[in-house]
Amino acid sequence: MKLKELGEFGLIDRIKSGIHIPDGITGIGDDCAVIPCHNGKDLLVSTDMLIEGTHFLMDDITPYRLGWKSAAANLSDIAAMGGRPAATFLSFALPDSLDSDWTDEFFKGYNDISRRYHCPLLGGDTCVSRDRLSISVTILGECPAGTALLRSGAQDGDKICVTGYLGDAGGGLKVILDGAHRNSDAQALIAMHYMPIPRVEEGLKLGITDGIHAMMDISDGIGSDLRHILKASHKGAEVNVASLPLSDELLRTCRRNGWDPVELAISGGEDYELLFTAAPDAKIEVPHTVIGSINNSGRLVWLGTERDFGGYHHF
Amino acid sequence: MKLKELGEFGLIDRIKSGIHIPDGITGIGDDCAVIPCHNGKDLLVSTDMLIEGTHFLMDDITPYRLGWKSAAANLSDIAAMGGRPAATFLSFALPDSLDSDWTDEFFKGYNDISRRYHCPLLGGDTCVSRDRLSISVTILGECPAGTALLRSGAQDGDKICVTGYLGDAGGGLKVILDGAHRNSDAQALIAMHYMPIPRVEEGLKLGITDGIHAMMDISDGIGSDLRHILKASHKGAEVNVASLPLSDELLRTCRRNGWDPVELAISGGEDYELLFTAAPDAKIEVPHTVIGSINNSGRLVWLGTERDFGGYHHF
Repeated sequence: MKLKELGEFGLIDRIKSGIHIPDGITGIGDDCAVIPCHNGKDLLVSTDMLIEGTHFLMDDITPYRLGWKSAAANLSDIAAMGGRPAATFLSFALPDSLDSDWTDEFFKGYNDISRRYHCPLLGGDTCVSRDRLSISVTILGECPAGTALLRSGAQDGDKICVTGYLGDAGGGLKVILDGAHRNSDAQALIAMHYMPIPRVEEGLKLGITDGIHAMMDISDGIGSDLRHILKASHKGAEVNVASLPLSDELLRTCRRNGWDPVELAISGGEDYELLFTAAPDAKIEVPHTVIGSINNSGRLVWLGTERDFGGYHHF
Repeated sequence: MKLKELGEFGLIDRIKSGIHIPDGITGIGDDCAVIPCHNGKDLLVSTDMLIEGTHFLMDDITPYRLGWKSAAANLSDIAAMGGRPAATFLSFALPDSLDSDWTDEFFKGYNDISRRYHCPLLGGDTCVSRDRLSISVTILGECPAGTALLRSGAQDGDKICVTGYLGDAGGGLKVILDGAHRNSDAQALIAMHYMPIPRVEEGLKLGITDGIHAMMDISDGIGSDLRHILKASHKGAEVNVASLPLSDELLRTCRRNGWDPVELAISGGEDYELLFTAAPDAKIEVPHTVIGSINNSGRLVWLGTERDFGGYHHF
């Protein structure tokens, strides 16, 4: 079967079926693998690949921003489990047209965001590429044993919450791809696309908050990501489209260009906000917006719209 | 400065200079990073990237062998520290011309070698590539706290030892690249190139043997790799070229094609044998060959030849 027909998640299911994952370990299918360390802590591990032409365009992104984003996307995976980042490992295949000024700037961005979370680069691999730049980052983190917030914990009656705004990064990418006018609003959206702030502090707080049942980060848009929580938890949900948090910058940019902000909020990728479900009476001390609720229906219903929203697909 | 002028190790030094590595952690510059876990164990982490056109040719390697090699190269990095493999994480960018038969075969090879060492695949990332296949594997392993065998421990008077034969994998690659006749000897060398056996059991035994002072795996040829041990240990060495262990298959293939087996043994890459230094009276229960000795000269001298041998360079 062609990979396009199989799809990213079909391929992952197929890979998973060939592997025996030992008891007590959470592997493949959450933001991180969770491995007990028998020292009161669990080890969290995640890996991400960024390919020129698929994830970024060399002509449009500065090396500083690319370095930042490479680290930020991985830091967000640790945040998504309620964990503390510990170290990263970076492999890249570099086109030999690049020079040491480029790599210096790349690592300046990479280290600037990594240092905020005391998460040093501890190793990697470098090689030459004949054409495109490929970057692969693996991150390690930790959390108190048994406390990692998985996708599979959502419960009937939970409220569905998100941090920050949705759709800004997707709006920024649309500005780039459509060649839209880059006023200050559009620049702000582009910055959200290239220099996301991973929600590490928020994730750590949610990790020790009673009543938080499931969590993940929003990398493909909630239209796709919320489905992962529902599938893993065997639940359904209702989402109020009118309650999706939209920034003024996104609203003004969409008005100016005739774009639909709701579509960007639901299907735009790489917001790196946290999506979590919480008991109705949970005391949540992290700024957030309630966008809907979990139920036992097994279906995802978008209230206030006729449309069915998916998410970004890698294949 | 162009990356070609800077070189792989110049780039690594430059990256390292921008990073603060916390006390007690060994990062960047050995086969694995070593991170204390405070449970009587140290965590070992390594990452490797394989790029189509740089590390392998799609027309020549079967997906099964490519999967095998992707896992084996990483298992070897854990072996090189005297550690026990625990889990791997794999990212790849797949050209959309590939199909699920290809990925099934790839993971069959990947899992066949991983299972031998009880080292399951626990996560990863998949995306589409516009052209070339990129593979990045990160491996985790463990060893008793403080026992990891580093490159920096070689001592004056140590004997220099290697497991297995040198140059077979390099000979196999030369058969492929030169289009040499593929008789059974040549096929055996090609198999060593594509399906190396990581020396995990040997590494574990050496890890608990008294008097083993430094170790690494041979991925770029001993001409290059031994220099890493000498640099990290601030030592020199003499190597007896006549004592390099050469297989009959390599000797016959070299004779047939007019190639120099010594050059392949010293400069050919990807043997994935272990290179280690040991006190003269160390009781070594792993099959090995003594090829020379460590001294305080700071220089590497090849006895029995007029030539100066380097190793494979990635840039």
